[in-house]
Amino acid sequence: MADHLTIPQLIMKKRNKEELSKQDIQDFIDAVVQDKAEGVQIGAMLMAMLLNDLTVTETTHLTNVMMNSGDTLKWPEEWNGSLVDKHSTGGVGDKISLVLAPALAACSLKASLTSEIKILPVPMISGRGLGHTGGTLDKVESIPGFQVAIKTDQMVDILRSVGCCIVGQTSNLCPADGVLYKSRDVTGTVDHIGLIAASIVSKKAAENVNALVLDVKAGKGAFCETVEKAHILADRMVQAGKGMNIKTSAVITDMNSPIGRMIGNALEVIEAIECLHGDGPQDINELVEQLGGQLLLSIGQVETIENGKEKIKRTLTDGTALKKFCAMCEAQGVAENFAEKLCTKGDISHLLPKAQHKTPIKSRLSGTISTIDAMECARIAQSLGAGRTKSDDKLKNGVGLELLVKVGSEIKEGKLAINRNFIFLKINPFNIRRPK
Amino acid sequence: MADHLTIPQLIMKKRNKEELSKQDIQDFIDAVVQDKAEGVQIGAMLMAMLLNDLTVTETTHLTNVMMNSGDTLKWPEEWNGSLVDKHSTGGVGDKISLVLAPALAACSLKASLTSEIKILPVPMISGRGLGHTGGTLDKVESIPGFQVAIKTDQMVDILRSVGCCIVGQTSNLCPADGVLYKSRDVTGTVDHIGLIAASIVSKKAAENVNALVLDVKAGKGAFCETVEKAHILADRMVQAGKGMNIKTSAVITDMNSPIGRMIGNALEVIEAIECLHGDGPQDINELVEQLGGQLLLSIGQVETIENGKEKIKRTLTDGTALKKFCAMCEAQGVAENFAEKLCTKGDISHLLPKAQHKTPIKSRLSGTISTIDAMECARIAQSLGAGRTKSDDKLKNGVGLELLVKVGSEIKEGKLAINRNFIFLKINPFNIRRPK
Repeated sequence: MADHLTIPQLIMKKRNKEELSKQDIQDFIDAVVQDKAEGVQIGAMLMAMLLNDLTVTETTHLTNVMMNSGDTLKWPEEWNGSLVDKHSTGGVGDKISLVLAPALAACSLKASLTSEIKILPVPMISGRGLGHTGGTLDKVESIPGFQVAIKTDQMVDILRSVGCCIVGQTSNLCPADGVLYKSRDVTGTVDHIGLIAASIVSKKAAENVNALVLDVKAGKGAFCETVEKAHILADRMVQAGKGMNIKTSAVITDMNSPIGRMIGNALEVIEAIECLHGDGPQDINELVEQLGGQLLLSIGQVETIENGKEKIKRTLTDGTALKKFCAMCEAQGVAENFAEKLCTKGDISHLLPKAQHKTPIKSRLSGTISTIDAMECARIAQSLGAGRTKSDDKLKNGVGLELLVKVGSEIKEGKLAINRNFIFLKINPFNIRRPK
Repeated sequence: MADHLTIPQLIMKKRNKEELSKQDIQDFIDAVVQDKAEGVQIGAMLMAMLLNDLTVTETTHLTNVMMNSGDTLKWPEEWNGSLVDKHSTGGVGDKISLVLAPALAACSLKASLTSEIKILPVPMISGRGLGHTGGTLDKVESIPGFQVAIKTDQMVDILRSVGCCIVGQTSNLCPADGVLYKSRDVTGTVDHIGLIAASIVSKKAAENVNALVLDVKAGKGAFCETVEKAHILADRMVQAGKGMNIKTSAVITDMNSPIGRMIGNALEVIEAIECLHGDGPQDINELVEQLGGQLLLSIGQVETIENGKEKIKRTLTDGTALKKFCAMCEAQGVAENFAEKLCTKGDISHLLPKAQHKTPIKSRLSGTISTIDAMECARIAQSLGAGRTKSDDKLKNGVGLELLVKVGSEIKEGKLAINRNFIFLKINPFNIRRPK
């Protein structure tokens, strides 16, 4: 035991820019989980890690140790190699999981040697929104009856019968990350590449998935404002994922403008279902195909990314992904009758929470829409009640924004540009380039 | 109130290397004192301050705000301008306060316009030892009956009648420093120039002294291992002191070898009394004269430092400082009879706590003593029980080391080099240069 450092010595080591060993990180995280590290010590260590940075090796050790700080999920042996998941660093209007999970589940695998259909299990363990980006759980919960608190054995049943689920974390996964994340939130130590990578990848590793695709957002509405920063974060996460034996890949995607045209929980469900009918906006379709195709490639189900994208695309146009979505809703508590109505083509807005007021916003100028500020859209949606500023804030699922134009659209002064489903619009998120 | 930042914003500002305003520092310290800042936030801020450094302006603001976080002492108006104190950054065998306080008190001031003798009040508010250096309070408490818990109004009485006292902190001085110091101790954030300067000077400012001399130690047994680092610390403290309207000066003194020849609480009291008899070792006499002379110069009682040193020296040789020491002991609870015996020339070791065992250490080599490792001496004394490793450790006041040689002494193999007043000596602190 002579080579174990005390907590102050561990902090001092990182403070002095020495690399922490795996044992050092293990000792620190043990102290955090066992409540032996004082708050002041956790705060000091996090700041030392942020200001002196974590090496790739330290990040991998931290990921590993955090993963092992609690339970890890166990899956049926026959699924080994085909469990997939995706993680997004947080986008505005990001309803990708709602489309991607059923699309992947629809790509059921024909086992090579038997005629038995093998499933491709997609356990999407998602989070709630905090800050300006909404959480996937908040979105699915705007569907009446949809339950996200699903125990692991029940998840296995759903994955076996449907192939996908969208659930919250119920097991004691990564308790160390729980403590550190809460601490980072109040100490200005959230936005550090190494800490983010370890936090995200340790949770996915504890979920015991085989392949992971990371949707790393870059732009005004994202944590990484530049593509360069997104590249560094993507690299670090991919390395951490590979260190955990997860086939990890990353896609860097634009987050200057919102994804799709709906922002707000129920509105995004409506848009996701449109996509599953094959009627989704181009940007969502592309993202779903890219991320899904990448996962199919990672687990060896396709030879090229193009084949993978093609396969995903087919599930959106032939209705198989929609069927999976409908089955998932039913399996997660939505009434059968209601789920079927929800998945019927046509206006379904009356089935979901709806804002009391609707204000059409007209353009004050004529010209071409050059940008739609994702961050401003998110702030507006949040101020309407679609997002939280504190973790116990109650959401208004019906509110949000419905963009009636996209980047590149021509607009005339006085023409409808946006439907705001509540109170008042503080700031116009559009930049309009006037014609010369 | 719009320009007040939240605690996470304040941490983020320092983290991003922006200079904190006085308002920022005030807000943070208010939150610390009012228990509104969480431990993790205090730890993160301390580490950000340490790694990103504090500017001179920030240090001065921090000093000011910490001083005002609690009570400040009030003194009789006629003392205004003549209240003096000294602070040492911590030395091994440092019994200077025990000699300097009565020596300064013996330099009573003849007021220029009246024949009335004005006193020079020396309220030495001291601390206990933690780590390898002993505390002045622990030393005086080895005198049977000596009370250090003295309330402010009682202090005024003692200062009026005697001129000096050596007491512990009883009022609610600098509670912010109390919290921060405790936090620094466990987070590897003790050894930062700005934080040290603010901590020390804020307490002296709350004691409301007019002149302060800082004994900044440099060398193996000190926090500042090099003279260069000691210079930087001294500069920062002098600037912080001047910012508080205290006439502040600093002396950088050698701490490679112990001060004097005694290390251990009762042993150091014996050596201090020897000095007050005029029989002290050269190094202690020089330090007392230098620090005392500087203070007399700072309050304008002498024209030159040499005059000041001469004046202090006289109090040690003419017995006036010894009389003040004796009177101080009586005023602080020591029996009159006992105090007089203690101040009588001759062997007084039987009057104070004594170690049960005494081991003479003989030299294993012949040669010249080139260095005496102060840090090793401190560690030995601490392991014998003279110092604390935890703040609630009970001390053994009788134990310690009595050095029988000094740097430059010739020594023969087998000759007595040290008396160790307890158990066993682990490491030989002497470096002996063999004759060529």
